[in-house]
Amino acid sequence: MRIIGIDPGYAIVGFGIIECRALDFRTVDYGVITTPSKLPIEERLEIIYNDLGTLLDRYRPEEMAVEELFFNTNHTTGIPVAEARGVILLSARQHGIGVFEYTPLQVKQSVVGYGRAEKHQVISMTTSILKLPKPPKPDDAADALAIAVCHGNTGGSALRKYYNIR
Amino acid sequence: MRIIGIDPGYAIVGFGIIECRALDFRTVDYGVITTPSKLPIEERLEIIYNDLGTLLDRYRPEEMAVEELFFNTNHTTGIPVAEARGVILLSARQHGIGVFEYTPLQVKQSVVGYGRAEKHQVISMTTSILKLPKPPKPDDAADALAIAVCHGNTGGSALRKYYNIR
Repeated sequence: MRIIGIDPGYAIVGFGIIECRALDFRTVDYGVITTPSKLPIEERLEIIYNDLGTLLDRYRPEEMAVEELFFNTNHTTGIPVAEARGVILLSARQHGIGVFEYTPLQVKQSVVGYGRAEKHQVISMTTSILKLPKPPKPDDAADALAIAVCHGNTGGSALRKYYNIR
Repeated sequence: MRIIGIDPGYAIVGFGIIECRALDFRTVDYGVITTPSKLPIEERLEIIYNDLGTLLDRYRPEEMAVEELFFNTNHTTGIPVAEARGVILLSARQHGIGVFEYTPLQVKQSVVGYGRAEKHQVISMTTSILKLPKPPKPDDAADALAIAVCHGNTGGSALRKYYNIR
C-alpha cells in the first residue's frame, strides 16, 4: 500500500510518500510545495494543484492521509489554508485516491503512543520508523510523513469526522 | 463586460452571470450547483469543479466576483465552505478569469446604497436593476446576481483584502 501524507497550507504544503507492507514502512519521497507570497491566492492554488498533480501522477499513491483543520485563534490564515485543502482533496479525488483525515492528537498517539507528545518526539519517532539517516526537513515534510505513518498504522480504520465514510 | 457572481458553499453554490455595458445590466443566466449531502467532501468538491467548469466554458465570463468569507460563529461549516471556495478560485484561474472579492456590506452598499440593508431589499433591488420579471430563486442565485451587480457597479475598483492586487 502506497500512502501520501499531506500537511496542508497555502504557502507551504508538506508531502510524504511511504510504502507500507504490514507494519514495515519504507520512504519513497518527501518534500514541500511552496507558493510565492506575492501572488494572488488563485495563482497559489493553481501551483498547489499542478505540483500535487505531478506528484500523484509520478508516485501513484493509493490513499491520502491529511491533517484535519481546526480554526481557533487565527481565522484569517485559516481561510486560505482551507481553500488550499479543498484543491488538495479535489486533486486526490480526480486521481481516484481515497482521502482519510487525522487530528494532530491521533497522529501523535499513533506515531509516539502518546497524544500530547512534543513535536520533536514525533519527528524523532517518524525518522526511526522510516529508517531515515536523519530527521526529514523541513518540518512540514516531517509532519506529512508522520501523518502517512499514522495512516499506515491505523490502516484506514480512523473515523472521518465530518466527512462521510464511503 | 461579462461577469459571473458566485455565492460560495459546498451544499449549494449560487451563480449569476450578467453582461454590463456602462451601467446597463442584462441577465445572462443564473442558478445553483448543488451537491448531495451523502457524498464525501472530495466528491462534492469535484461536482462543484466540474459543474462550474461547464458554466465557465459555456458563458465565458471575463471576471468573477465572489463573496468574501468570514468565520465567526460556525467554524465547522466554515471549513468546507472555504474548501469549496478554493476549488472555485482554482477554476476561475484555470479559465483565465480575474477574481474580485466583496464583503456582504460592500454588496449591500453597492446594490441598495445602504450597508445594513435587509436581504429582501437586496433581492428587490437586484430584480429591478436586472429588469427581471420576478425575484430570482433560490436565494443563493439571487445573492450571486447581487454580487455580480456589485462588481459591475464598482468596476473592479474594490480592494481585494488579503489577496494581492494583480
